[in-house]
Amino acid sequence: MIEHLGQLFKHLSCGVYVIGIRDGERQNAFTAAWVMQVSFNPPLLAISINPQHYSFKLMQTGGVCTVNVLSRDQYALAEHFGKPGLSDKMAGHRWQTAVTGAPVLAHSLAYFDCKVLHYADAGDHKIAVCEVVAGGKLNQGLPLLYALTGNMDGGDSFY
Amino acid sequence: MIEHLGQLFKHLSCGVYVIGIRDGERQNAFTAAWVMQVSFNPPLLAISINPQHYSFKLMQTGGVCTVNVLSRDQYALAEHFGKPGLSDKMAGHRWQTAVTGAPVLAHSLAYFDCKVLHYADAGDHKIAVCEVVAGGKLNQGLPLLYALTGNMDGGDSFY
Repeated sequence: MIEHLGQLFKHLSCGVYVIGIRDGERQNAFTAAWVMQVSFNPPLLAISINPQHYSFKLMQTGGVCTVNVLSRDQYALAEHFGKPGLSDKMAGHRWQTAVTGAPVLAHSLAYFDCKVLHYADAGDHKIAVCEVVAGGKLNQGLPLLYALTGNMDGGDSFY
Repeated sequence: MIEHLGQLFKHLSCGVYVIGIRDGERQNAFTAAWVMQVSFNPPLLAISINPQHYSFKLMQTGGVCTVNVLSRDQYALAEHFGKPGLSDKMAGHRWQTAVTGAPVLAHSLAYFDCKVLHYADAGDHKIAVCEVVAGGKLNQGLPLLYALTGNMDGGDSFY
């Protein structure tokens, strides 16, 4: 039994990202904080995601995603893309299309365009191990840090 | 082909940690940046580590580790525990023993005591998926961020 485990986990630093997903004509985007580099060669990222969510199904069938880095003045975007059940979350934002076909949030700091290689079990989440096949810097600014976003409850990626 | 991929990866925010390892009488500690929470229930962490290093063998055989969070004034510790091949890296620092038996760096901000559940392939690294079985806050301060440690080359965990 560990007291204040949620508080303890806040000592682990992480950024805040919008993950873009596409499977054919269907696309979606959601906010995540549990993202990190895991390999140099090939360049790989890991994203820990909740398999109960619609976006996970799209990722499984589409096999691609983008990781879009939010800046310190984009907390409102993190909140917006973190809301579940919106009928069209993506409307009203500027999107580009990555090499893989996944949507890129044009006003993010930078993006990584990824092919999902495989999944690993991780308790109530799944770790998607993704190869970075393209990417680029889009705008100037400093990354939003999860620890700075005190209004988010839990310390999780959220969808 | 992605230009400046190393620079691009620096947009992914991460902390800096000392990982403590024990297998019976053998113990070691090394610096890592590729650490994140991956599950709420059970509470799990993922650590991406280089399987070529001695510490990985100790982790495989011992099955336990601690994740010790460095503070912003502990850059020198990150450098020290990042050096390969030191005969006794751990001497001269204060250590406690976690529930699992793994060493806890007493002057870190906080620690997580972990059992390694399984490993996932991730290119030139392996992802260790670890259950947090104990932990606690040790000292006051703000976490060291990888992006602030400009002298580290590459953007990697390092051993």
